[in-house]
Amino acid sequence: MKLGRLNHIGVATPSIADSVAYYRDIMGATQITEPFDLPEQGVKVCFVDTPDTGGTTGEGTQIELIEPLGEKSTLNTFMEKNPLGGQHHVCYEVADIEEARRWFEEKGKRILGPTRIGAHGTPIFFLHPKDMMGQLTEIMETPTEGAQV
Amino acid sequence: MKLGRLNHIGVATPSIADSVAYYRDIMGATQITEPFDLPEQGVKVCFVDTPDTGGTTGEGTQIELIEPLGEKSTLNTFMEKNPLGGQHHVCYEVADIEEARRWFEEKGKRILGPTRIGAHGTPIFFLHPKDMMGQLTEIMETPTEGAQV
Repeated sequence: MKLGRLNHIGVATPSIADSVAYYRDIMGATQITEPFDLPEQGVKVCFVDTPDTGGTTGEGTQIELIEPLGEKSTLNTFMEKNPLGGQHHVCYEVADIEEARRWFEEKGKRILGPTRIGAHGTPIFFLHPKDMMGQLTEIMETPTEGAQV
Repeated sequence: MKLGRLNHIGVATPSIADSVAYYRDIMGATQITEPFDLPEQGVKVCFVDTPDTGGTTGEGTQIELIEPLGEKSTLNTFMEKNPLGGQHHVCYEVADIEEARRWFEEKGKRILGPTRIGAHGTPIFFLHPKDMMGQLTEIMETPTEGAQV
């Protein structure tokens, strides 16, 4: 497998509304998507776009803001330990999600649950942080042109 | 201030050698810099390059691997809490470091120490995670062409 693009870093927050204000007013973000619920993941989500090396905003690694949604959200445990929020996961793109799944399985890495549709509308899965040098790691199939949120 | 490029995410590790093997053999990284000591920051450092949207490796957000260097390293406390390592900080680029410093000071954000030269050879400073939605945040002046590590 070849290392893919760092699509986004997942950043947990107790309040997406507060985080949006922070990224806009303190960090100077100009492109932030509307928040939406992802009930199957137990999170409310929105994306902050960052620029690439050429300065084109939206082409850089995104910040995925995630707020717990519902009492059963797996994010609740993280928020208890980190009430201010903070870095939660990293997400790398791959061309073929099934090939990637087989790759990590062969390497003995624990995959957390089935492959499912993620916040960008493409298949994703998560890998156990204890098998990934301490990082909860999401693998996502690269969105095709026009499909990206 | 306008949001700059996400230059790198800082990832702490108990062993840069193990992390380099992980990013190369598991994650499929092809460009990893030689580790070097940054004694004034109390860390050993190397960078894993990632591709941008066009697939050009080295143009995407880097992974900055940091291993504690010396008994007084501020990273030792982090490693005690996170023995496997994990996400440590985020780093955004700005065009003018002094202007950025004034901006964050005016916003009442705690800056950790003086502006100093960072791992890419350009001026940097860090902001207190409790003022930055739970994220230790590094601000660095964009490297000029040819100066980037």
